[in-house]
Amino acid sequence: MQDAIIVTYRIETPGDPERVAAKIASDQSTGTFVALPGETEEVKARVAARVIALRPLEPVAEPGFGRDHPAFATGSRFNRAEADIAFPVEAVGTDLAALMTIAIGGVWSIRELSGIRVLGIRLPASFAGAYPGPQFGIAGSRRLTGVEGRPLVGTIVKPALGLRPHETAAMVKELVEAGVDFIKDDEKLMSPAYSSLEDRVKAIMPVILDHEQKTGKKVMYAFGISAADPDTMMRNHDIVAEAGGNAAVINIASVGLGGLTFLRKRSKLVLHAHRNGWDILTRHAALGFDFAAWEPFWRLSGIDQFQINGIRVKYWEPDESFVRSFKALQQPIFSPDDRPLPVVGSGQWGGQAPDTYAATGGSTDLLYLCGGGVVSHPGGPAAGVRAVRQAWEAAVAGIDLGIYATDHPDLARAIEKFADGKHA
Amino acid sequence: MQDAIIVTYRIETPGDPERVAAKIASDQSTGTFVALPGETEEVKARVAARVIALRPLEPVAEPGFGRDHPAFATGSRFNRAEADIAFPVEAVGTDLAALMTIAIGGVWSIRELSGIRVLGIRLPASFAGAYPGPQFGIAGSRRLTGVEGRPLVGTIVKPALGLRPHETAAMVKELVEAGVDFIKDDEKLMSPAYSSLEDRVKAIMPVILDHEQKTGKKVMYAFGISAADPDTMMRNHDIVAEAGGNAAVINIASVGLGGLTFLRKRSKLVLHAHRNGWDILTRHAALGFDFAAWEPFWRLSGIDQFQINGIRVKYWEPDESFVRSFKALQQPIFSPDDRPLPVVGSGQWGGQAPDTYAATGGSTDLLYLCGGGVVSHPGGPAAGVRAVRQAWEAAVAGIDLGIYATDHPDLARAIEKFADGKHA
Repeated sequence: MQDAIIVTYRIETPGDPERVAAKIASDQSTGTFVALPGETEEVKARVAARVIALRPLEPVAEPGFGRDHPAFATGSRFNRAEADIAFPVEAVGTDLAALMTIAIGGVWSIRELSGIRVLGIRLPASFAGAYPGPQFGIAGSRRLTGVEGRPLVGTIVKPALGLRPHETAAMVKELVEAGVDFIKDDEKLMSPAYSSLEDRVKAIMPVILDHEQKTGKKVMYAFGISAADPDTMMRNHDIVAEAGGNAAVINIASVGLGGLTFLRKRSKLVLHAHRNGWDILTRHAALGFDFAAWEPFWRLSGIDQFQINGIRVKYWEPDESFVRSFKALQQPIFSPDDRPLPVVGSGQWGGQAPDTYAATGGSTDLLYLCGGGVVSHPGGPAAGVRAVRQAWEAAVAGIDLGIYATDHPDLARAIEKFADGKHA
Repeated sequence: MQDAIIVTYRIETPGDPERVAAKIASDQSTGTFVALPGETEEVKARVAARVIALRPLEPVAEPGFGRDHPAFATGSRFNRAEADIAFPVEAVGTDLAALMTIAIGGVWSIRELSGIRVLGIRLPASFAGAYPGPQFGIAGSRRLTGVEGRPLVGTIVKPALGLRPHETAAMVKELVEAGVDFIKDDEKLMSPAYSSLEDRVKAIMPVILDHEQKTGKKVMYAFGISAADPDTMMRNHDIVAEAGGNAAVINIASVGLGGLTFLRKRSKLVLHAHRNGWDILTRHAALGFDFAAWEPFWRLSGIDQFQINGIRVKYWEPDESFVRSFKALQQPIFSPDDRPLPVVGSGQWGGQAPDTYAATGGSTDLLYLCGGGVVSHPGGPAAGVRAVRQAWEAAVAGIDLGIYATDHPDLARAIEKFADGKHA
C-alpha cells in the first residue's frame, strides 16, 4: 500500500482489540453486515483499509462511554490497544470531508467500542498540493505587526458581549496606546444588533489607522466575522478588508470545514482560529481526539493563528495537554510554512511566561493573549503590556521573575496583583 | 426577558450545580476572570444570560469526563441538575454559528463541570424567518417519488467503497427493477478517483431515467456530493441536477454548518443528511448533546431527509434513543413544513417494522432504508423489496409478521434469513 493515510486510534473494548481494529478497517471501507455479491477480492484489494500495527495497552476498569449502555454496565476489564490503520488514498481521495467521514466519523458509531480516541493522522504527499494551508502563518503575522524576536502581545476586548461600537472603540484606543501588538473581539462577539460587525469596523478601524499614522505601528485587530452562512462571512470579511483591517476571528468548530474552506480561498485577512466547541471532543481522555489528530484539518484548510490555551488557564485543560498542542502546531505537516502561529491565552498575565518558554522548547513564536491580565493591571493597560513584555524578557534570559521585578516595577505590580491564586 | 433562546443543560459537578449554572450564564455572556471597567450594570442588563430554572437530579458516583482529571480523580458524589438558561436574542443574534459558539461551544470548556449535556433548545420566533428550513421535506420527498400512504422503501449501494461506475450502474439497474423508491450512495462514497461523482452520475442517471420512461416511476437516487470545499460541493450538485437527478447525500458533520448553508441557498436537490460523526457527541450519556438539541441546527439550515438509525441497529445506539430522535424530528420547530423526512436505517430488513410503527406513534412518514436486508434477500432484491413492503403492511394492519408471512412468501423467506440474530 504505497499511497495511504495512516490513522492511529486508541481502541477500548470489553472484547478483543485486534478483532475490533479489523472491524474498523472493514466497516470503514468495503464492509457491511452480510456478504454481498459485489464485494469481490478485486474490490477489496483496491480499496480495503488495513490494520498495519497493533500495540496492546493496559486494560482499564471503567468504560470510556460510561456504564449507561447495557453492554458496559458490568465488567471491570476493558481491553485497550493502539491501532494504526492504513486507508488507501485511492479509496478516500484527498478531500478532508471524505477523510473525516471515512476514517473518523464512522468509527464513533461502532458498537463493540467502549472507548475510542483518534491519536494521530499521517497524510501522504498527495495531500500536500490539495490544500492551501495558512496564507500568513508565523512569518506573515510577524511581518504585519512588525514584531520580531519576542512573542506578539495581544489582548481581548472585554466584557465579551454588551459594549456598543463607540464604547469598544474607546477601549481599543486605550489598548493601542498601551502598546499591544494585537487585539481581538471575544469569540462570542460576531454581529449582534447592538454591535453589528459593520458598525464595529467603522468605529474601530479609524482608531487603528490613526495610531498607525502617528506611530508607524499597525496593531492587528481580529474582528469576529464568523457566520453560519459563508456568503455572510465573506461580506463580513470584505467589510474588514475594505476598511484596512488585516485579521479576523473564525470560530472554526461552529462554521465547519465548509465555512473555513470557502473563506480561505477568497481571504485577504489573517485567519485567527478560535476552537470553541472543541473541548467536548477531547476532554474525556478515552474519547474523541488528541489535538494532534484534529488540528491538521484546520491548518491545511488555512488557519494562520490557532488558539490553544496556555499554562495555568482558567479552563479545564491541564498544562501537559496545552504543551502537546503547542508542539503539534510546531511540527510541519508538509512544510514549515504550514505552521500557524500558536495563540497562548486564558488567564495569562506574564507570570506563566517562564513555564511556557521552558515547556515549549524555548519558543517565542507565539501570540501571547492576555485579557484581564493586561487591562486590569493596577497601573493601567500600558503598564500591563510592559509587565507582560518584561515577563517574557526574563523568561528568555532565564532570570527569575521575582528578581527581574526588582528593577521592573510594572512586572512587580503585576506579580502583586495576579500571582498564583489571586486572579482566579 | 422577552426574546430569548432557552437552552436546557444537564450539569454535573463535584461542587454546587446552582453556582455552576450561574457561572455558565455569566461566562457565556459578559463574564471574565476579573472585574472590568466596562462591565457596567447597564451592559449586564442588556446582554446577560440568566438561569431561569434549576431542577436538581440524583447525584452520580462516576464523573462524566472520567477520572483522568486531578479534580475528579477521587470523590464519589457528583451533583447534578437540569438548568434552563435564557440568552437574550439581543446578545446572540439569530446566527446559528453564534448560537453554537455562545450557548454550547463555550460551555464545554468550563473547569468546574465533571459532565455536561445539552438537552434541548427553544428558539424564539425571531429565528423563524432567519433560516430556510427544508426545501422539500416530507411532502416533497413523497411528491418526487410518488409514494403515498406507506414508508418510502430505500436501499444503499454496497459494498460501500470500491465499485467502479459501470459496476454501480449495473447494481442500480437491478435495484430500480426491484421496485425500490430510493437509492443512495454509501455516505463514505463521495468522489474518489476510481468512481468520480461525474462518472458515477453519467453511469447511473441513464438507468434511473430509462426506468422512469418505461414505468413512469422515478426512483430518487441520492448521490454523495459532500466536499470540504462548498464550491466543489456546488459543482457536484450541478452535475447531479443537470443530469436529471433529484437528491444528494450530505455528510453534515463533515462539511459543517457553513457547507450546508451555502448549498441550501442554491440547491435544487433533496438534501439527505447523513450524520456520521455525530455519535461521539451523544454516546456518553453525561456528555455532549441529546439529538433534540442538535438536530434543529441542521433542520433550520435546510435538511430534507435525516438519517437517525432505527430499531435493533448494528451500531451502538439503543432503541429508546432512536425513538426519541424520531419524535424530535416529528415536532415542528416553527411550522410543520420544517420537519424533514426521518430516515430509518442500519440492519433493517422489515422485521423491525412493527416495533418501529408502534414506537413512533403509528407513523409511516419515513424512509425505510435497507442495505443487505434488500439486496441479500434469498429471492433477490425484488423479493427483498416486496418483503419489506409486506412487513410494513402487516405492521400498519396490526397483524403479526409470522402470521402475515403465511400467505406472503417473500416475507416468509426474509424472516427465515434475517430474523433475530441471524443477520448480525
